Amino acid sequence: MKNKEIPELVVRRLNLYARCLGYLEEMGVLTVSSKELGDRLGIADTLVRKDLSYLGEFGHRGVGYYVSQLRHSIRKMMGADKPRALVIVGAGNLGLGIGKYHQHFLDNHRVVAYFDTDPEKIGQSVEGIPIYPMEKMEEIVAGMGVELAVLAVPKDQAQRAAEKLVLAGVRGILNFAPIALQLPPTVRVAYADLTLELQNLAYFLEKEANSTSPAGFVISRRRKEG
Amino acid sequence: MKNKEIPELVVRRLNLYARCLGYLEEMGVLTVSSKELGDRLGIADTLVRKDLSYLGEFGHRGVGYYVSQLRHSIRKMMGADKPRALVIVGAGNLGLGIGKYHQHFLDNHRVVAYFDTDPEKIGQSVEGIPIYPMEKMEEIVAGMGVELAVLAVPKDQAQRAAEKLVLAGVRGILNFAPIALQLPPTVRVAYADLTLELQNLAYFLEKEANSTSPAGFVISRRRKEG
Repeated sequence: MKNKEIPELVVRRLNLYARCLGYLEEMGVLTVSSKELGDRLGIADTLVRKDLSYLGEFGHRGVGYYVSQLRHSIRKMMGADKPRALVIVGAGNLGLGIGKYHQHFLDNHRVVAYFDTDPEKIGQSVEGIPIYPMEKMEEIVAGMGVELAVLAVPKDQAQRAAEKLVLAGVRGILNFAPIALQLPPTVRVAYADLTLELQNLAYFLEKEANSTSPAGFVISRRRKEG
Repeated sequence: MKNKEIPELVVRRLNLYARCLGYLEEMGVLTVSSKELGDRLGIADTLVRKDLSYLGEFGHRGVGYYVSQLRHSIRKMMGADKPRALVIVGAGNLGLGIGKYHQHFLDNHRVVAYFDTDPEKIGQSVEGIPIYPMEKMEEIVAGMGVELAVLAVPKDQAQRAAEKLVLAGVRGILNFAPIALQLPPTVRVAYADLTLELQNLAYFLEKEANSTSPAGFVISRRRKEG
């Protein structure tokens, strides 16, 4: 199935497997079965095997998958082995928090610039990353060939900032503002929607509290990717 | 279907409909069809109707759904009409950014406390919300009956902080640290996984850049909830 288009949900799970395999590798684990991998992530082993077959990777009978090799194959297919530049629009707590988080945790994504409208912030640097005015966006983004951006501005500034990003050449936006951006269909937007995540959690807490099941609330933890 | 268990993905979509209906209400729209609602969110109208049938809500022929009434029904079913207390563990940029974002954007979730280990931060307040030492967690969380928490601490502190939250009585955690928490099955964890979101976006950008399709890259924007 190597050249088949991979559905979005499969891409999400493949990236999840790669991360989990990274942990196993750090722990010195050499091989893993689809069942062990699935159990760690709350995903059925049949689905794990189906997902991995997109890569042309098949387990070895009695051995399973070689951890390091499988991780490498997934990361290569996902493009996670290439370094990528990223800009963050909004240098408030949320933007800076994401930037710092990524400096520490993200392997191939490197934050190269913040953008903000606040004259007090413009011209400063945070952990070596400069904060530019919004007017410099086209120059920096186009000049560095940046395609990915994180949008961490207030709701009422988000649409306009997103349009500026797109005009500068950005093709993928991770949006933290709780609004649906109206952008050309060539641009991909992912929504980091904290409000919705909390509402979803709250619903299940509520339901469990009201449950009359004799076992009380016993719910499996699941990754949010469903 | 009113008493049927609602699957997680349906809950996510229902919360999404409620938000969209809120926008429509603000805009003065009185009625909406399943097609119009679906089009705004990239969800098929058949799926919209199926989801709404969990509420026992059916559209009216030639009219569709009454915006305000439908939003109210969903929010009631989702428990989004009740105020809820929330604590944030980690008063770094990310934690404070989330707190400020929620002060502004979240209707029924109210941040009541931050927790941190930094003696410089402990005892301060941010927009009226106090920062407590970790040792106070049980007292505050149990005392106020808080069930929801956001975890915004570095990766190596996340598991321990999560355990403290659970011991204090928290049952739902929105985790920003990129690790899989090991907690009792009675606790629900949602992963706000920025790294994975970016890797997913990056994969699709890569694929589109390599696409040989004559139309170039034309991809529909989708909500991340898939």
